[in-house]
Amino acid sequence: MSTSTTINEREEGLVFQPKFDASGLVTCVATDAATGSVLMVAHMNDEALRKTIATGEAWYFSRSRNALWRKGETSGQTQRVVEMRTDCDQDAVWIRVEQTGAACHTGRHSCFYRKVDAADGGARLSFVDADRQFDPAQVYRK
Amino acid sequence: MSTSTTINEREEGLVFQPKFDASGLVTCVATDAATGSVLMVAHMNDEALRKTIATGEAWYFSRSRNALWRKGETSGQTQRVVEMRTDCDQDAVWIRVEQTGAACHTGRHSCFYRKVDAADGGARLSFVDADRQFDPAQVYRK
Repeated sequence: MSTSTTINEREEGLVFQPKFDASGLVTCVATDAATGSVLMVAHMNDEALRKTIATGEAWYFSRSRNALWRKGETSGQTQRVVEMRTDCDQDAVWIRVEQTGAACHTGRHSCFYRKVDAADGGARLSFVDADRQFDPAQVYRK
Repeated sequence: MSTSTTINEREEGLVFQPKFDASGLVTCVATDAATGSVLMVAHMNDEALRKTIATGEAWYFSRSRNALWRKGETSGQTQRVVEMRTDCDQDAVWIRVEQTGAACHTGRHSCFYRKVDAADGGARLSFVDADRQFDPAQVYRK
């Protein structure tokens, strides 16, 4: 990717030239291909993007573990990519996936299992779609 | 938000305590409440979150302009928030919105108007759902 890439080429062109942040990452939103629900928001580096595109399985880069990571490699909860899209400025990708089991490390289907509502001038949370599909203590035990 | 917040409180609690990054931002994914399509990925700071929750309209923080921004304030393409959710570690929110017109500054309904496909060991883009609903040159003229 050239630093001389113009906005117009990035927004209107057909060359995939991800705009990585200072840490070398783009944001990835994974949605459930069947329901449209957002499953998770995570990050991909260049290698994770390449592997995802080449294999059709979701790979991410974990900022906390500073490591490339094939989704489901520990938990078995893999994601098959049905479609990948990039956004206007190419700093985010959206993948529609077939999720095996649950996307969230807490055992829920989606990471977004709490609703945010206005309350008393601030906000409060409430659980929604929060049933666990697996027990994290079992799945991630060492 | 206390730095002593435990992972368990953040993941399993009912207190909204967004985990802002070093720039004071969380990631926000906006989807179309009617279709489930991802419209855009943007960022919110504390004030944008508060205003979004209090008003039911989407506010963001623009990293490029370093400014709070009510979605549609220039273009008229506002977003009414039907539901907000937060993810397990509270560093991202998902809003389902009723989008007036088009979400993308290029005039498309969604920012994700290009598909990424594997090609020749790399990737290529193709336009999909890329019809413009407005002419950016008209909407954003000074």
